[in-house]
Amino acid sequence: MSNSNSWLEIPQSSDFTIYNLPYGIFSTNQNGKRAGVAIGNQIVDLAAAQAAGLFNDLNLPAGVFETGQLNDFISLGNGTWSALRARLTTLLSDENAGLKAVADSVLVNQADATMHLPVQIGDYTDFYSSMEHATNVGIMFRGKDNALMPNWKHIPVGYHGRSSSIIPSGTPFHRPKGQMLPAGAETPVFGPSKLLDIELEMGFIVGKSTELGDTVSVDNAKDHIFGMVLFNDWSARDIQKWEYVPLGPFLGKNFASSISPWIVPMQALEPYRVASPKQDPQVLPYLQHEGNNSYDIHLEVYLRPDGGEDQLISKSNHKYLYWTIFQQLAHHTVNGCNINVGDMYASGTISGPTKDSFGSLLELTWRGENPIQLKDGSERKFLQDFDWITIKGYCQKDGQRIGFGEVTTQILPVKD
Amino acid sequence: MSNSNSWLEIPQSSDFTIYNLPYGIFSTNQNGKRAGVAIGNQIVDLAAAQAAGLFNDLNLPAGVFETGQLNDFISLGNGTWSALRARLTTLLSDENAGLKAVADSVLVNQADATMHLPVQIGDYTDFYSSMEHATNVGIMFRGKDNALMPNWKHIPVGYHGRSSSIIPSGTPFHRPKGQMLPAGAETPVFGPSKLLDIELEMGFIVGKSTELGDTVSVDNAKDHIFGMVLFNDWSARDIQKWEYVPLGPFLGKNFASSISPWIVPMQALEPYRVASPKQDPQVLPYLQHEGNNSYDIHLEVYLRPDGGEDQLISKSNHKYLYWTIFQQLAHHTVNGCNINVGDMYASGTISGPTKDSFGSLLELTWRGENPIQLKDGSERKFLQDFDWITIKGYCQKDGQRIGFGEVTTQILPVKD
Repeated sequence: MSNSNSWLEIPQSSDFTIYNLPYGIFSTNQNGKRAGVAIGNQIVDLAAAQAAGLFNDLNLPAGVFETGQLNDFISLGNGTWSALRARLTTLLSDENAGLKAVADSVLVNQADATMHLPVQIGDYTDFYSSMEHATNVGIMFRGKDNALMPNWKHIPVGYHGRSSSIIPSGTPFHRPKGQMLPAGAETPVFGPSKLLDIELEMGFIVGKSTELGDTVSVDNAKDHIFGMVLFNDWSARDIQKWEYVPLGPFLGKNFASSISPWIVPMQALEPYRVASPKQDPQVLPYLQHEGNNSYDIHLEVYLRPDGGEDQLISKSNHKYLYWTIFQQLAHHTVNGCNINVGDMYASGTISGPTKDSFGSLLELTWRGENPIQLKDGSERKFLQDFDWITIKGYCQKDGQRIGFGEVTTQILPVKD
Repeated sequence: MSNSNSWLEIPQSSDFTIYNLPYGIFSTNQNGKRAGVAIGNQIVDLAAAQAAGLFNDLNLPAGVFETGQLNDFISLGNGTWSALRARLTTLLSDENAGLKAVADSVLVNQADATMHLPVQIGDYTDFYSSMEHATNVGIMFRGKDNALMPNWKHIPVGYHGRSSSIIPSGTPFHRPKGQMLPAGAETPVFGPSKLLDIELEMGFIVGKSTELGDTVSVDNAKDHIFGMVLFNDWSARDIQKWEYVPLGPFLGKNFASSISPWIVPMQALEPYRVASPKQDPQVLPYLQHEGNNSYDIHLEVYLRPDGGEDQLISKSNHKYLYWTIFQQLAHHTVNGCNINVGDMYASGTISGPTKDSFGSLLELTWRGENPIQLKDGSERKFLQDFDWITIKGYCQKDGQRIGFGEVTTQILPVKD
């Protein structure tokens, strides 16, 4: 690994190498919310760096890193993102470039910082882009012969989700209550969800807005994406099952979704582009693109019982997705739907081809038929109160590594 | 009518009587966006009224009416809404109370103002709360015996919609393009929607936020609602039909939704509360409430061919809704989903019991089988390019009237 190509000490296994430079919003005991860039175990406080004059020639508006979200910075456009990224690379690799001299006031230990939502999210859409996931769920609910819906290979199927309940890593949430229909019953009952599940997903964040009526072509989609995060789309399967016909998932999903706090820029992900799964039948022209349009991002899910230890329960990869993020955005806007900086677009559960790569407990335990055995002797069909779930993600190639850190969340009991 | 209980001249048929006092955001050639209250044919410029000292004892923050949206004002709480409403009533009814003396600088002709979105909308949810509408659509798509889904009388069914494409009255939009499956075909085609439709709805706007994990009881729901608007949920039936299984409507809806620009406060609507339809079977306890929980709001839809005249095509009423707005909000939050000031909750299509009260062309023309005959000799199964649709709404009782004004929109051809 050549991860320590910096005068700063960067741990060998760090996700936050000089090749990454992800953006987030943090606060400390000393300061309120401000923008930062993660490097090793530290954060470059962008507001402090601006105050120290390190960005003087970059034409950044005063206060742009102290608005409490990254939307204003992102709205400056990808010319500004590139210029700042280049400057940070210089400052971190050349000890005489100016940062080292002011390091005491500009670098913050990640251990001393609280991370917040990185952007103010306008709209949030969740796709359903893993063929393996859609097939698994289809087999369970409709049988093998009707697993995939007729539209699935023509449309990157998606639906609108709830923005208000998207929370950053480290924020616990309460098990949701709701209506569900017990097996064999004719009328629903009300109570805590018994089938609380994860969904291993990733999300991308819009970097360039459009006007109502505009479309974004599949080839231009990249220009409208700022970066990506890990995304856990918590799901109450019993609530979802009773409510979702005919208008889709609602209270079975909107009680919480968790994201990793650092947005990895698309520029950092560029070396990890790989070929996408072959699409057969051929998709309509507005969805066709060529070249390497998928991303080789390793994904891991860990379950930790309260007081226990993390146990790997799934290993998947973003490249398994049948539909690419560029196709998702082109489809979303082909009818003229406008997008805004800060919008969040999640992938849908990312399941791979093997049983150990499934992205939900529903699939991993096959509706609870094959419980997961934990090291403490207990087993899980679905999540229990006080369980912790952690999702990690990283890319690795040619001795370089970049990662997403993690999104880790504890389940609290139902709130009275 | 005792509508002219003001020293200001208020036309006899005005929606904006002294009993209404709806809030909106307007701009003029002289000033950028600011908050106003409609009265007769005029607007009380709240920023100018504040500057003139008319609200000095109300503890309103400086600049609160010049933020470009009403969210900051609404967030001050219903004590402030009530105090300002009482003050405006005094200023408008008593010519010596101070407004008349500064009328030249505080009153603006509506004809000189451009109306904007009244709030920054965080999340938008669309319900499906009219039994007549759900039944009509069910009969058309699944036959008479399976018209209503098993969950429909237990759950105020809803789904998340797109906030970014909600536009104010007067903003035209382009006919959407998309995928659709021609009758008898096995693969989809791409092109302009041929089945562009309206949905006659109303929306309410959240006035008081909650934290993640909190629930709003059906009895407390009223405290969290600021006011209501007219809502036209444009729908491309051909796109919707091909995409909506299993995750719900998406591109068939999110190209545009139109709202009336004046938010009528719940306080103004209080005299028009009436009994709700009987719910059988009994709903679960968290959805039970007593008293008059529906609103007697007359609704009208007009279609105008380009160059032609408005023709009434539907008369409905908000009171026909099977589920009340309080049940909608209680259900939405029962799982801990948090709500924010400015959130929009639409009713779903409001169809009444008779054919002339259906709230969509899909129902009015019964899938195009019975076209609407227009006075110019043409007919409509669905909307044509350049058609105008106007929705109006009002309450009337005991010689008093309040109204919502209108939401009027023209359809433009597909954008190349």
